[in-house]
Amino acid sequence: MTETTTRSDLSSTYDAARAYELDRAHVFHSWSAQAEISPMVITRAEGSHVWDADDRRYLDFSSQLVFTNLGHQHPRIVAAIQEQAAHLCTVAPAVANGARSEAARLIASHTPGDLDHVFFTNGGADANEHAVRMARLHTGRHKVLTTYRSYHGGTHLAVNMTGDPRRWASDHGSAGTVHFFGPFLYRSAFHARTEAEECERALEHLDQVVSLEGPGTIAAIVLEAIPGTAGIMIPPPGYLAGVREICDRHGIVLVADEVMSGFGRAGRWFAVEHGGIVPDLITFAKGVNSGYVPLGGVAISDEIHATFAHRTYPGGLTYSGHPLACAAAVATIRTMEDEDVVGRAERLGEDVIGPGLRALAEKHERIGEVRGTGAFWALELVSDRSTREPLAPYGGSSPEMGAIVKGCQERGMLPFANFNRIHVVPPLTTTDDEVREGLAILDAALTAAAG
Amino acid sequence: MTETTTRSDLSSTYDAARAYELDRAHVFHSWSAQAEISPMVITRAEGSHVWDADDRRYLDFSSQLVFTNLGHQHPRIVAAIQEQAAHLCTVAPAVANGARSEAARLIASHTPGDLDHVFFTNGGADANEHAVRMARLHTGRHKVLTTYRSYHGGTHLAVNMTGDPRRWASDHGSAGTVHFFGPFLYRSAFHARTEAEECERALEHLDQVVSLEGPGTIAAIVLEAIPGTAGIMIPPPGYLAGVREICDRHGIVLVADEVMSGFGRAGRWFAVEHGGIVPDLITFAKGVNSGYVPLGGVAISDEIHATFAHRTYPGGLTYSGHPLACAAAVATIRTMEDEDVVGRAERLGEDVIGPGLRALAEKHERIGEVRGTGAFWALELVSDRSTREPLAPYGGSSPEMGAIVKGCQERGMLPFANFNRIHVVPPLTTTDDEVREGLAILDAALTAAAG
Repeated sequence: MTETTTRSDLSSTYDAARAYELDRAHVFHSWSAQAEISPMVITRAEGSHVWDADDRRYLDFSSQLVFTNLGHQHPRIVAAIQEQAAHLCTVAPAVANGARSEAARLIASHTPGDLDHVFFTNGGADANEHAVRMARLHTGRHKVLTTYRSYHGGTHLAVNMTGDPRRWASDHGSAGTVHFFGPFLYRSAFHARTEAEECERALEHLDQVVSLEGPGTIAAIVLEAIPGTAGIMIPPPGYLAGVREICDRHGIVLVADEVMSGFGRAGRWFAVEHGGIVPDLITFAKGVNSGYVPLGGVAISDEIHATFAHRTYPGGLTYSGHPLACAAAVATIRTMEDEDVVGRAERLGEDVIGPGLRALAEKHERIGEVRGTGAFWALELVSDRSTREPLAPYGGSSPEMGAIVKGCQERGMLPFANFNRIHVVPPLTTTDDEVREGLAILDAALTAAAG
Repeated sequence: MTETTTRSDLSSTYDAARAYELDRAHVFHSWSAQAEISPMVITRAEGSHVWDADDRRYLDFSSQLVFTNLGHQHPRIVAAIQEQAAHLCTVAPAVANGARSEAARLIASHTPGDLDHVFFTNGGADANEHAVRMARLHTGRHKVLTTYRSYHGGTHLAVNMTGDPRRWASDHGSAGTVHFFGPFLYRSAFHARTEAEECERALEHLDQVVSLEGPGTIAAIVLEAIPGTAGIMIPPPGYLAGVREICDRHGIVLVADEVMSGFGRAGRWFAVEHGGIVPDLITFAKGVNSGYVPLGGVAISDEIHATFAHRTYPGGLTYSGHPLACAAAVATIRTMEDEDVVGRAERLGEDVIGPGLRALAEKHERIGEVRGTGAFWALELVSDRSTREPLAPYGGSSPEMGAIVKGCQERGMLPFANFNRIHVVPPLTTTDDEVREGLAILDAALTAAAG
């Protein structure tokens, strides 16, 4: 059934002008001042592109919020959703269901080590909330260490774990979270000059924080395997292994937040593979089913699973393991397997995005650093390469950044922007030519904004 | 595309034995000791029924977790999901989209008063988390008052708002929540003997708690409009109006949690209509789209919306206003309008469930109280009517309760059980005859368990 053949319950939703008007009247938008926004209407999407109210086409270099890893309207995921909808939309979490079981099996088959048990949530925030609860009950300790320059979700505990300005309004110092500095050579907190030095000093710093906070008080260290929205800072070789060692030494649970970095985004099924480590818990969402149906979860080690073998896990949610969301995950993961999407993302980074962005850096003085892997890249933009002064202040924007974003959009590309950074995070299925087209637009927008 | 005509990505998910085996190997279940459960496999569902691995049919008197308000596999909701999936599965929350706009319009058209702005979440827990954030920032105060005998969700703040044993493991006294007693005449905390007395004393109690906690420290009072899992205690006439008055007197935000009670469950679009009041925020989930796709949200008054007109609301989530979930809400609400599902639920309670349960109470000594409205009823089971000794301890179960639940299941009915209570919460679309059939099974199970 489509809108062209039948008058359906959705007929009125295809009118873009009406969609805008009703949005402004009734939709409360996240992270926004409601009277100061004028949202673009997206009317349709396919593959690497979306279309606006004027039927203008845009190359989606943002994967929306870095989640449509297989692009828009992938036929296998759409077919699975339609089939599951016809068969069985939903059941309660207490029962068993084939779509949920198969999604859990497929996820477990790709997680590293013995992380073979999956607790399903609705998204990344609640995945992180539940991972912390598991760690607290497993250890009998309360404190959670997370990094500055991180994002872990919008619910109260998750936003208190977050190390960016989105935490501030909700931080009353009572969430049991402590922030430390992760490695970030370009803006080193440790006065390091090399990656090896940054790694060594960042581990020494963490070791000190653990000692001074009290190892016996710390339930978990939670890290984005590669910090995402905060800037795609690839951990230097040895860093994750060093964190793993600190956790092992003190019986601290290591939680890798792979909500953004997982499911191929970083050219691996999970980004922790770059560091060669196995965390105790991995949280995921987004790429698990390309965001086609809300889904997140926690992959759990045998040891933590055993803690809750004969002791009730005190947590849950109505839609845990929602069949429709799990069916979308089954089709997504099978497609990724069949088409080697993870290998494709790795090659896209090595052969196209990385070289392309480095070529832009040769040309544009405002590009202070290019960093990334797979389909997960950031440009650090600066007003002065020698001082590394950001092109927008931490937590804010600037006319210069606004001009670059607008320049991209006007030329038919949707970028992902945060503070002084432009991230290049297209669907993993974006073709080489589409990536080159997007980089050319970015090139033109940087030139125009500098002029 | 269905499993019978094409080998799809989901083919292997239809094998019930495999579903069970993989569930036990890979699915971590909520609120459970993982090694001590043996989940029923639900293989298909339609209308008021579900089927298990042996193709045994069960009348669903639980609406799963009180969310399939329009029953299973309702053709209009399925069609809307399939159509939206074919058209546009997902977009980011920052843009506008027709399905989201129309869902917001429809929800706002049924919320009381000026609650015309909708912030979408993935479920009820995050809806409550965001409602508290809005209230805290709107008032500049921190404390949140909620009732004992309540459930508000599984994330950290939401479970700390919760007034049942599920809170205990996560309660470190630091969430800014304070619990008070709501009205519950059958087990009165106020030694009241009549509904009027219970109401008056419960309001006097709340007034005292507010005074002693400090009115200027209290951001919000959060109440389930009718407490759900905690026991379906209908507030006595005047109670909600009294709470509204206390909130008005002190500038406290009144949040009605209608996650379970909303969208027709209580024979009204929202259960607050029974009390004739307009809260400042209403949280919802479940019935908004019968749970076919994960969706929740907060309906926001003009006044609180205005607080965030020129000030950024510091909260969000990747799947806020997910188009697929919103399309399911559009079809659900339109169906409810066209078929007067809310009126049907009211009549079902007045003509069939209420009289049927009261007839059971005449017959079974163990039924201490029958209470409810619409398709939202509880039996309070006791071992002794005079002492009102519960048939299972608070927070626990008992052989007697287990026997009743098992007796229902063996006779082909899925009940909703909590501690010493059986709730009768079928889909609002359940026929009169189906309800009578379910009540007859309950009758037989009570008889067998008593023998």
